Amino acid sequence: MTFKYKNVYINDTATVIGPDEKKGPLNNYFDKSYDELYLNKKTFEQAEIKMIEDSLDILFSKIQKTRFDIDLFISGDLLNQITSSNYVASNLKIPYLGIYNACATSVEGLIIGANMLEKNQIKNCICNVSSHNATAEKQFRYPVEYGGPKPKTTTFTVTGAASAYLSNNPSNIKIESATIGRVIDMGINDVYNMGAVMAPACADTLYYHLIETKRDIDYYDLVLSGDLGKYGKRILINYMKTEYGIILKKYDDTATIIFDLNEQNVYAGGSGPACAPLVTYGYIFSKMRKKELKKVLLLATGALMSSTMVNQKMTIPAIAHAISLEAI
Amino acid sequence: MTFKYKNVYINDTATVIGPDEKKGPLNNYFDKSYDELYLNKKTFEQAEIKMIEDSLDILFSKIQKTRFDIDLFISGDLLNQITSSNYVASNLKIPYLGIYNACATSVEGLIIGANMLEKNQIKNCICNVSSHNATAEKQFRYPVEYGGPKPKTTTFTVTGAASAYLSNNPSNIKIESATIGRVIDMGINDVYNMGAVMAPACADTLYYHLIETKRDIDYYDLVLSGDLGKYGKRILINYMKTEYGIILKKYDDTATIIFDLNEQNVYAGGSGPACAPLVTYGYIFSKMRKKELKKVLLLATGALMSSTMVNQKMTIPAIAHAISLEAI
Repeated sequence: MTFKYKNVYINDTATVIGPDEKKGPLNNYFDKSYDELYLNKKTFEQAEIKMIEDSLDILFSKIQKTRFDIDLFISGDLLNQITSSNYVASNLKIPYLGIYNACATSVEGLIIGANMLEKNQIKNCICNVSSHNATAEKQFRYPVEYGGPKPKTTTFTVTGAASAYLSNNPSNIKIESATIGRVIDMGINDVYNMGAVMAPACADTLYYHLIETKRDIDYYDLVLSGDLGKYGKRILINYMKTEYGIILKKYDDTATIIFDLNEQNVYAGGSGPACAPLVTYGYIFSKMRKKELKKVLLLATGALMSSTMVNQKMTIPAIAHAISLEAI
Repeated sequence: MTFKYKNVYINDTATVIGPDEKKGPLNNYFDKSYDELYLNKKTFEQAEIKMIEDSLDILFSKIQKTRFDIDLFISGDLLNQITSSNYVASNLKIPYLGIYNACATSVEGLIIGANMLEKNQIKNCICNVSSHNATAEKQFRYPVEYGGPKPKTTTFTVTGAASAYLSNNPSNIKIESATIGRVIDMGINDVYNMGAVMAPACADTLYYHLIETKRDIDYYDLVLSGDLGKYGKRILINYMKTEYGIILKKYDDTATIIFDLNEQNVYAGGSGPACAPLVTYGYIFSKMRKKELKKVLLLATGALMSSTMVNQKMTIPAIAHAISLEAI
């Protein structure tokens, strides 16, 4: 399902990151970083809430608005019941839509917001996502075997929060179109290989986006998936070629950009809902503002993994949503 | 945040229910019922998935369409990672938005769909929610003390799935307007008193809906909250009176309608995302089609409860979304 927009802009963004992301190659592109995972809070969950609140404070300061000026807050995260988003929304006290499509949540939120903005149903909104390495490990991996090595296809959940302010007021970054993806399950149940789980969903959304916009892949200066990781990236390239005859050349994946995969112990790269928007809002937008990139297609990919279902020997479904961004 | 619609209809719905709901007073208003909680599946989670799929099969048969005719599937449920919705979406293979606002999810989905339909961004959509007593108990209450009595303010999660088909084609039930609610936290951390947690959020959304539509409470033939339960209902009535000077007369709550509170052992009544839409699509729509009710305001209320945060002594935030339904 593809939408075209004439009238929707990402006016500003705010990004905050954890200690591992700080040691990565993109450190200078983020608004704030933390040296440890607790942020002086008593629990990791409360640290994740604090990260989102910090990103919102930075965003409000950039756009010179208060929460009373905002029509709608759209947010999701990895925690059960999207807990971090809920508690932030509780403090914000503005109309709130909670969403969940795992690591595809960032683009899901942008699409819901963009559709309402395009038709002037709202005058502005803030779209947010977060992830926290320790809250995600605690929830999805616990109990972890002592000293158990992880396979190299494992990804490393990014710690950070990314908030974007969207409105109809023209600015540098325009949302030009978007595609809501379908859920694809290729029968994989390996929780340590999310790249393989998500790559076919990413391919499906990319293919339908091109068909429905009647575009060639070369229309885009960059196709950016997030977050397939080192191995998922290769699967996507092969899959697009063999399944659809489409050659991905100007292509990269946010999982492999946010960390230095040679220097940092992050296996196949970053993951978590925050990974794709952190790289996009920080690094890619800076390139777009300098006009080094004009047309970027961001494909946020999510593994809809439930530990309960994996324990029941079910395979893992995945989804990807696409958004076309233009430098103005 | 209130939206007005000229052009959005709920053309058809499908409702399936579990054994306890079958013993309730509304049994005749649902499309299908089950005599036990497993539905011949090996696990409760797979039974919940089956319930949604059954409701979709019934809906497709009623609207005489297949999944290839549907632009968008919007769904959420109570399970971590909204698992039931994800696995159903995986089998459906149509564009999918996963959403979560606990028991307010049903109206959240209707609002997202209605906004897109109003402006012809999609031609139709299916909005679904489900809940299952045993999956919810397993997830939120486990471990349960043997023989431990529950307080009377406890609610009983409804087993069922409710799917609605929305389009621009005029039919009996029109979505006339809607209000996205704010998250309200009144400092309660009693997981056995969700009615008290949610009533102030319900009051807040009801108040803003009336303000933003410039309506008196008497505009509606029925204000229907779902699901505050027996005690939450009283709190809402008192709160509306003392806080806003609004007297709720033509008012009821779905938690107290779906079960016979005198005969069935369900404490303060039903809960779960399926409760409000089951009562609305089954019982209320039948009254609307007979013109016994013309204007109904449905307020779906959700307790954004996370066991993790309650264990950290945090209080429970709540939200409510409102949708105004008109019999045509």
